[in-house]
Amino acid sequence: MTMQQTPLILSRILGRGAKLDPNEEVVTLLENGTHRQTLKTTWERANRVAGALKAHGIKEGDRVASFMWSNYRHLELYQGVPSMGAVLHTLNIRLSPADLEYIINHAEDRVIFADEDLLPLLEPLKGKIPTVELIVICRYGENGESTFTDVIDYEDFIKDQPSSFDWPELDENAPMGLCYTSGTTGKPKGVMYTHRSTYLHTMAQAMTDSVSLSALDALCGIVPMFHAMGWGMPFTASMLGCKQVYPHKYMSPDKLLQLIVDEEVTISAGVPTIWQGIKAILEAEGESKYDMSNLSRLTCGGSAPPVSMMRWYWETYGVEMVQGWGMTETNPLGTLSRKVAKRSHIRLTEDQQFENIAKAGLLIPGLDIEIVDEEWNPVPHDGESVGELLIRGPWIAAEYYNDPQPDKFHNGWLVTGDVAKIDQEEYLIIADRSKDLIKSGGEWISSVDLENHIIALEGVLQAAVVAQPHPKWDERPVALVILVEGSNVTRELILEHCASIFARWQLPDDVIFVESIPLTTTGKIDKKTIRADLDETNYQLPDMRTA
Amino acid sequence: MTMQQTPLILSRILGRGAKLDPNEEVVTLLENGTHRQTLKTTWERANRVAGALKAHGIKEGDRVASFMWSNYRHLELYQGVPSMGAVLHTLNIRLSPADLEYIINHAEDRVIFADEDLLPLLEPLKGKIPTVELIVICRYGENGESTFTDVIDYEDFIKDQPSSFDWPELDENAPMGLCYTSGTTGKPKGVMYTHRSTYLHTMAQAMTDSVSLSALDALCGIVPMFHAMGWGMPFTASMLGCKQVYPHKYMSPDKLLQLIVDEEVTISAGVPTIWQGIKAILEAEGESKYDMSNLSRLTCGGSAPPVSMMRWYWETYGVEMVQGWGMTETNPLGTLSRKVAKRSHIRLTEDQQFENIAKAGLLIPGLDIEIVDEEWNPVPHDGESVGELLIRGPWIAAEYYNDPQPDKFHNGWLVTGDVAKIDQEEYLIIADRSKDLIKSGGEWISSVDLENHIIALEGVLQAAVVAQPHPKWDERPVALVILVEGSNVTRELILEHCASIFARWQLPDDVIFVESIPLTTTGKIDKKTIRADLDETNYQLPDMRTA
Repeated sequence: MTMQQTPLILSRILGRGAKLDPNEEVVTLLENGTHRQTLKTTWERANRVAGALKAHGIKEGDRVASFMWSNYRHLELYQGVPSMGAVLHTLNIRLSPADLEYIINHAEDRVIFADEDLLPLLEPLKGKIPTVELIVICRYGENGESTFTDVIDYEDFIKDQPSSFDWPELDENAPMGLCYTSGTTGKPKGVMYTHRSTYLHTMAQAMTDSVSLSALDALCGIVPMFHAMGWGMPFTASMLGCKQVYPHKYMSPDKLLQLIVDEEVTISAGVPTIWQGIKAILEAEGESKYDMSNLSRLTCGGSAPPVSMMRWYWETYGVEMVQGWGMTETNPLGTLSRKVAKRSHIRLTEDQQFENIAKAGLLIPGLDIEIVDEEWNPVPHDGESVGELLIRGPWIAAEYYNDPQPDKFHNGWLVTGDVAKIDQEEYLIIADRSKDLIKSGGEWISSVDLENHIIALEGVLQAAVVAQPHPKWDERPVALVILVEGSNVTRELILEHCASIFARWQLPDDVIFVESIPLTTTGKIDKKTIRADLDETNYQLPDMRTA
Repeated sequence: MTMQQTPLILSRILGRGAKLDPNEEVVTLLENGTHRQTLKTTWERANRVAGALKAHGIKEGDRVASFMWSNYRHLELYQGVPSMGAVLHTLNIRLSPADLEYIINHAEDRVIFADEDLLPLLEPLKGKIPTVELIVICRYGENGESTFTDVIDYEDFIKDQPSSFDWPELDENAPMGLCYTSGTTGKPKGVMYTHRSTYLHTMAQAMTDSVSLSALDALCGIVPMFHAMGWGMPFTASMLGCKQVYPHKYMSPDKLLQLIVDEEVTISAGVPTIWQGIKAILEAEGESKYDMSNLSRLTCGGSAPPVSMMRWYWETYGVEMVQGWGMTETNPLGTLSRKVAKRSHIRLTEDQQFENIAKAGLLIPGLDIEIVDEEWNPVPHDGESVGELLIRGPWIAAEYYNDPQPDKFHNGWLVTGDVAKIDQEEYLIIADRSKDLIKSGGEWISSVDLENHIIALEGVLQAAVVAQPHPKWDERPVALVILVEGSNVTRELILEHCASIFARWQLPDDVIFVESIPLTTTGKIDKKTIRADLDETNYQLPDMRTA
């Protein structure tokens, strides 16, 4: 080989920030104030936790689970577990006991690191997860008891270990992280990230044309560390030496807002509902009450944010909301939409720029996307033609962990399950999840398009559109709507508003006002549950405003 | 494999810019005005040239040479030759006929693409380069004749080829580019870049904490495309979709300055002497005569730029001069110094920030550096201890092409030949090329430190410090100085200026005023030639100001 064959493994990059800017901080919100430690201490504790796991007998490829909020100890596991060659399996704390049991057994986790307040959620699993030898309890006070027999306190676990671990020279294709998708159909499916895939994803995330993360940033990771590896941001921030700020379990919008202000956060990442909640506080308490001058970017994924909100943040605070598209299977960075993404956009009007960022975005370098018809033929990139979205590249899943799902992969591409358009500028536009498209009279109606339009109406807080079976048309759209308090928006107003851009046959058959909309464990609208509830007419009766 | 094994090959990324922003331009300066074509046309022509080379019989791994300035056709070769699986060998047009002959034969080039005005430089090689079957002449007018028998015009060569080539699925470790170092000792040595190494270098160059190249940039590549692949920038710009601006053979500072202004260049790259020359024009003609408002960064490598110049660009135009360290063997990105490189630097004074950017910089993510003593033991990172600089990582050479040089590689590291310090902030500080250090009375004197200090004196244009043999002290430093026209700086003033920070025994024994300083083919000070000239006392006699 003429060039060095340095393997693309995480131990080569995750300690870089601690080396270059050792005194920069990792801040975690706690009940009374914050926990603060330096990047150097964090990396040393990551080395210690690797030493403790090795002493316990954990070997390369073994699965080590976390059942934790986003906090400094979780970050230590992000750094130490993959670097030593083990696999960090981030358990979603919002799963049902049945799903948790299935996932832990399927992954054959040997150790679970659990935050003290989450221990009760593990109790129902006692006796049902035979591969688990040890539960490491992460305490923040004197609480945290478990009836499991093999338990140890996190600090006790690591305290006798040296601050420097001799990281092994792994194969770059070795596994390093495991996330299960909260599948809305069937059993959860595991995505096993490799060192190579995460290393390359980390480099891509540090690009200017991605989210332009830099050593000058203070990152507040609101997206939980158990969702697609916290969108990869803890890895990138560790490599670059960013300040890192984590909310732990304090996820209410008021706490998050105060944390962002207090810690001079420059970039944060989370699902749109988070930013809706923070916006509501800022509007209610007065837009100048909080010093938002440090904040420059809010990255946003999981579902599409309403353009009205993106505009509001831009016009009120000069904060750029960066929409992205991805999924657990894509690590998750797939496409991103920056306000000005090409030189030819510099001269666009602000209205035109917002038209662009309403789209799911442009492809991250290194990836390919295509949209295809039912015979796998590519459909035109004209912004009109709709096809099943395929994606490929070095950080895209090639299979599910120990669970072949051949129809999710085709000829080297991941079949995303999303239905999308690509326009002439190569912007990806997500039409819908294929299972959420509404088929009415042989034509397709996009539930996402209807939702986005309804939510843009002043006085509407949230909307969900789903298919209801119909004897004549197969399916018809029905909208569930949460109103802002005191709003006097009516069913007729919403339908009239929709009729301004949708054809008559695309309008919802019904608009149902509700107090809440069921969400999945990852914070997305749970359309499976809504459809089931509609079948049982759970919605019509209790709400008096329906008619 | 749980994640896709997409190979890291250049055909996967180099066409991305043309796809996303097809109408963005590639601009080349010509005799009368500019040549302009779109990114889409450039990529299509890269596909055509690949088709033509394949039709000629070029196979994967074959060497295809370029003997060209930086222009749109050279860019087409950058995109097309590696993507088809062949190796682009960029010949340095400033080499002697003897070195050219050696290099072409050593590389076994099959085809040479040559700019018309450079053809006479190939004539002496006639009959001496038997592997070369074809010379493709790049004409810009009606000129360009050659006495070689097998020649074809570039446009004729590609004209019948389709605009889409079916890029092969190469092994990512396949070779893609070949550069010979203009070795100041011994024969030139070839560095054979691979797809993987250049792909990863390209991703690193697109990072915010690197030179933060972005799709919004207009890049003017002044560093020639035959120097370490134009510092990799044509690849990164092609991936991102930057506007690309090339000076072709018009390399005088006035032409370059006008090109930067006319084409609204945002970032440019070149050796320090280029920026000195442009600064001299701006000062002479008035700093407000040119609209410098689009320019934001000047990246600078090859040798260290004087801090006084970096300050001048920053204070006069708000232009950040980004110093980097690297070499042909490092592809070349090794370290970079941004004005504010860490969060802890935000609050530094401007003076302190300039102290930092006077250093060679911080390590690019993915690389490791170390400084070692003569027994290969690491020396402390204290900013004082000096050692031989080693570097490793996925875009660092592991060997020279068909030319083992075991003492240039040690235990997986490249031995750079530079002598350096690393400070407590992990900044690399280049003390000197090991062969340029001056050994006087058992102590080392850094020629680079003396040069940088002398050049900071107003009225000094350029300085070179070399060792002269000395009967008692082994070696003593001697300074060659070029003064600004009309300057009244004297020998005594320079020595007094040096005495302000250097010890008495470190001061040059002599200061010789000269009209020019010999440069190597890569634009660096040619100390080998200066030392030889000093031995022959070529300098002392002709200059009357010496005493």
